[in-house]
Amino acid sequence: MKVEIECLSCIIHRGYLEIAEATKNPKLQFKAASLLLDYLAKEFSPNAVAAILGTTRDRIIKRISGNPDVYREKKHISNQIAMSLLPILKKMMLIETTPEKRFRKAALAAIVGNIIEFDIPEHEVNFDQLKQLIVNAEEDLAVDEISEIYEEVKKASTILYLIDNAGEIALDKLLIGELKQLGLDVTVVVKGGPILNDATLEDAKAVSMFDLVDKVITTGTDAVGLPIPEERSTEFLEAYDQADFVIAKGMGYAETLTEVTLAQPHALLLRTKCNPVARHLGVARNKNVAKLMKR
Amino acid sequence: MKVEIECLSCIIHRGYLEIAEATKNPKLQFKAASLLLDYLAKEFSPNAVAAILGTTRDRIIKRISGNPDVYREKKHISNQIAMSLLPILKKMMLIETTPEKRFRKAALAAIVGNIIEFDIPEHEVNFDQLKQLIVNAEEDLAVDEISEIYEEVKKASTILYLIDNAGEIALDKLLIGELKQLGLDVTVVVKGGPILNDATLEDAKAVSMFDLVDKVITTGTDAVGLPIPEERSTEFLEAYDQADFVIAKGMGYAETLTEVTLAQPHALLLRTKCNPVARHLGVARNKNVAKLMKR
Repeated sequence: MKVEIECLSCIIHRGYLEIAEATKNPKLQFKAASLLLDYLAKEFSPNAVAAILGTTRDRIIKRISGNPDVYREKKHISNQIAMSLLPILKKMMLIETTPEKRFRKAALAAIVGNIIEFDIPEHEVNFDQLKQLIVNAEEDLAVDEISEIYEEVKKASTILYLIDNAGEIALDKLLIGELKQLGLDVTVVVKGGPILNDATLEDAKAVSMFDLVDKVITTGTDAVGLPIPEERSTEFLEAYDQADFVIAKGMGYAETLTEVTLAQPHALLLRTKCNPVARHLGVARNKNVAKLMKR
Repeated sequence: MKVEIECLSCIIHRGYLEIAEATKNPKLQFKAASLLLDYLAKEFSPNAVAAILGTTRDRIIKRISGNPDVYREKKHISNQIAMSLLPILKKMMLIETTPEKRFRKAALAAIVGNIIEFDIPEHEVNFDQLKQLIVNAEEDLAVDEISEIYEEVKKASTILYLIDNAGEIALDKLLIGELKQLGLDVTVVVKGGPILNDATLEDAKAVSMFDLVDKVITTGTDAVGLPIPEERSTEFLEAYDQADFVIAKGMGYAETLTEVTLAQPHALLLRTKCNPVARHLGVARNKNVAKLMKR
């Protein structure tokens, strides 16, 4: 998925908020801004991918500010809040009478969890509304290929689950739990280093993901979405190759999966938090999407 | 007044909105964005002035898009709406019993009129609230040097009135009317070409400014606030030199008047529509400011 002109405003706005948070030293703030502008002057073109521009932006800010993890505190709080919701969501799942219905409920909770991302222009994270949005998730479901995704899941034996954000990762546990119930081998993938509020191994530990699955690995790098080929770890590449089916969460993967040839079917589960991604998927903003991407 | 790091986000956001409005051709949109980024990579530094960066941004967008006046329609509507408010505001002025009280009321209306500016992040122009905001203007008055300004006005014989925005220019007529009532020679200054929604000669005509004063001149250029010295017209320079007192409206003049040596006292009348300008003036955002700037 390529950038639209609107992406420029978002990339810079998030850059400014991150710079202002990363360092209070104006000299370093302006140095980071200047390097970011210089990079974008060269790379912001119709063929650019927003996730890659965002990754490089954050690397510039981390390097110049000396602050490696601007969203650390927000990620911590997000995990805590989402974990506190899990017991009631698990109870809500109990009323579902079939594995497919439970899968659907869990998928919807995981999609709504994708709301937890900060500093996107005109996107508010309201934790108080999270439970209600999960209850009402069907209403906002603009692309509903959950049945088709469930059919693919049933045919698979090995699943790769590409996590997006901290906080959200706690809600992903519901869907991963359903996959485990179906007897599937699930490998969970988090990011290899801090980038935005994307979940890392630290967040996987914070939500006790290791109690649920045997394998939690990383992409091998601190990139938004799918890392560029030369940065993918051998561990990640092997797990990707071996998976029969991939579940990918969030806009970062939506932006980068279009740039590669898919070796197996993928489920894309996300909330459309910005106009360009919503337009690309042919739906409105602030909608839930469960899309099956075939090979 | 120099830029803060926050200005970057605003400059780019307005740039994106203007580019998207100026042309629907993606090739031209990206070309304008690229030139803007290239310019800012060189010029966005702690010594930069936001008004100058904004001026150059808009010149790039006008040149590449071929659209010389993105805000034309909004300026037209703003003038119409503000003009429709004038009769009731004039009636409200009638209850004031002294020239000083009328001057104060008119100054407050002119300040609130400064709200009429588009595409500033987190700033909404709500025309329906305009009358009520004028009625309640004292409540939002965070810097109140109207009495001091009135004393300076009484000492003067020639006033230069630096207009900011279309729409707002209709409300400025109330204050200019009071200055005329005091027997003063008033020269009204609009911009020499379209820039943002700043008033030009076209807007001065639209609100019948020529019925009120003998001289409506321009800055000689399409710059935000005070033009850079080499772009000032002889007409503007002569009028500026001859004025005993200057009334300057809006953030563009606030940003640029700090960069010159004042030859006479100035009144700065504005609404703080962004954090950096508010901080510079030591007040909160969305406040009314009437500040006397001494030589």
